[in-house]
Amino acid sequence: MDNYIYSLEFKVRDYECDLQGVVNNSVYQNYLEHTRHEFLLSIGHDFAELAKQNIMPMVYRIEIDYKSPLVSGDKFVSVINVSKEGNLKVIFHQDIYRKSDNKLIVKSKVIAVVITNGRPSKPDFFLEPIVDKLI
Amino acid sequence: MDNYIYSLEFKVRDYECDLQGVVNNSVYQNYLEHTRHEFLLSIGHDFAELAKQNIMPMVYRIEIDYKSPLVSGDKFVSVINVSKEGNLKVIFHQDIYRKSDNKLIVKSKVIAVVITNGRPSKPDFFLEPIVDKLI
Amino acid sequence: MDNYIYSLEFKVRDYECDLQGVVNNSVYQNYLEHTRHEFLLSIGHDFAELAKQNIMPMVYRIEIDYKSPLVSGDKFVSVINVSKEGNLKVIFHQDIYRKSDNKLIVKSKVIAVVITNGRPSKPDFFLEPIVDKLI
Amino acid sequence: MDNYIYSLEFKVRDYECDLQGVVNNSVYQNYLEHTRHEFLLSIGHDFAELAKQNIMPMVYRIEIDYKSPLVSGDKFVSVINVSKEGNLKVIFHQDIYRKSDNKLIVKSKVIAVVITNGRPSKPDFFLEPIVDKLI
Repeated sequence: MDNYIYSLEFKVRDYECDLQGVVNNSVYQNYLEHTRHEFLLSIGHDFAELAKQNIMPMVYRIEIDYKSPLVSGDKFVSVINVSKEGNLKVIFHQDIYRKSDNKLIVKSKVIAVVITNGRPSKPDFFLEPIVDKLI
Repeated sequence: MDNYIYSLEFKVRDYECDLQGVVNNSVYQNYLEHTRHEFLLSIGHDFAELAKQNIMPMVYRIEIDYKSPLVSGDKFVSVINVSKEGNLKVIFHQDIYRKSDNKLIVKSKVIAVVITNGRPSKPDFFLEPIVDKLI
Repeated sequence: MDNYIYSLEFKVRDYECDLQGVVNNSVYQNYLEHTRHEFLLSIGHDFAELAKQNIMPMVYRIEIDYKSPLVSGDKFVSVINVSKEGNLKVIFHQDIYRKSDNKLIVKSKVIAVVITNGRPSKPDFFLEPIVDKLI
Repeated sequence: MDNYIYSLEFKVRDYECDLQGVVNNSVYQNYLEHTRHEFLLSIGHDFAELAKQNIMPMVYRIEIDYKSPLVSGDKFVSVINVSKEGNLKVIFHQDIYRKSDNKLIVKSKVIAVVITNGRPSKPDFFLEPIVDKLI
């Protein structure tokens, strides 16, 4: 996981699994969101505080490739890289790997914009702490 | 369902079922909450608006008896009665019945208090529209 | 909504909203899944029964454009069209519109494959009831 | 936390918070369930494996006292004690404490029964590894 800017470990919780016996597709978005928020916190941005100040990072588009399902008991690592697109978009490249064998579980691209007081705003203050680590 | 003050119909959604193939226990709290909020709306109280005004109905205690599980495809009706306890507590008596055979699925008692600007406040404005229907 | 093969109405439930006061991004996947499963049921396929027979429709890739957020109280309609790609992939074109003003909320493309006894299988039995309605 | 048989640490995830800005009531049941399943695993019982063998621990009744809400960023510890009631019921006494100040957040009693092949069965095999630690 050396090629990523941030990583976070999880373990599947049984309530996240559905009647197919695998983690429900929507739950990966929970994993991805929690990873982004922990990453943002690690670079000084508290999502809940930002919301109180009416600074709202919003997901604009998401693309997820489901490569293999996680099941009950699986441990996994959720990793991030970040890039910028144009003046307004931040792209989180987020992948999930199963711990036991490093199998790729999910490959995703999350495009976000920052809405400040209801209007799109430049995300530069957001990216400033990692400006030299953008891919 | 003539003995209840309010009722709302639902259908189980597959993502609400867990690896046992039944609706996960926690999901019934979602059903109960949604029923309460729709009931409150029906008597003129909008939960999201109240939150913006810093009027926060909060669950103080919940008791749920799980009588029989719901499964994929089940339709059910979620019903409410309301009573008052002391000066501050509102009790929602909330039951869930399967539609196909009126089987009792869940029997619950949800005790709520209203927190206004961070302090417990009398729930009388809340109950005023149904004061003659309290049990 | 005349251009879609299937539509289903919902109302936002408050527990689906997050601390930004809008429906959480992951919840749209719940809406989309429930719409697909109800659609499949309408053409004779019961998702839970299929799972018991080890016939597993799985999401292979999802793309969601978040156009505008839903908030507490919003009613919306979730619509579907279906197409086929190659021998194995089924594409669900799923959009969500707010009822009050027909505003487009979410535009998505959900690519699914059918895994039967652990192996990809042709989805033709799946699509047979709607073969003349594919886009 | 010396008085408990098992404890597990968590951190609130933002998607678990609702429009009141606190962890939604239903989410505590997710925390409690995950804690029970991890506890069971620690004494040799794998919940997902049991389900495959048609051995289904089911929640029969739950009582939760909500003492204080958790918010975004909170770390907490979820603890368990176990007792037996009659021949068939297992009682999980489950509490949640905020880490920063040991404040009691939730006090709960979860009564479970074991359904084997559709019928209630004695939970003794379940409790055998902790028979001398029951309260």
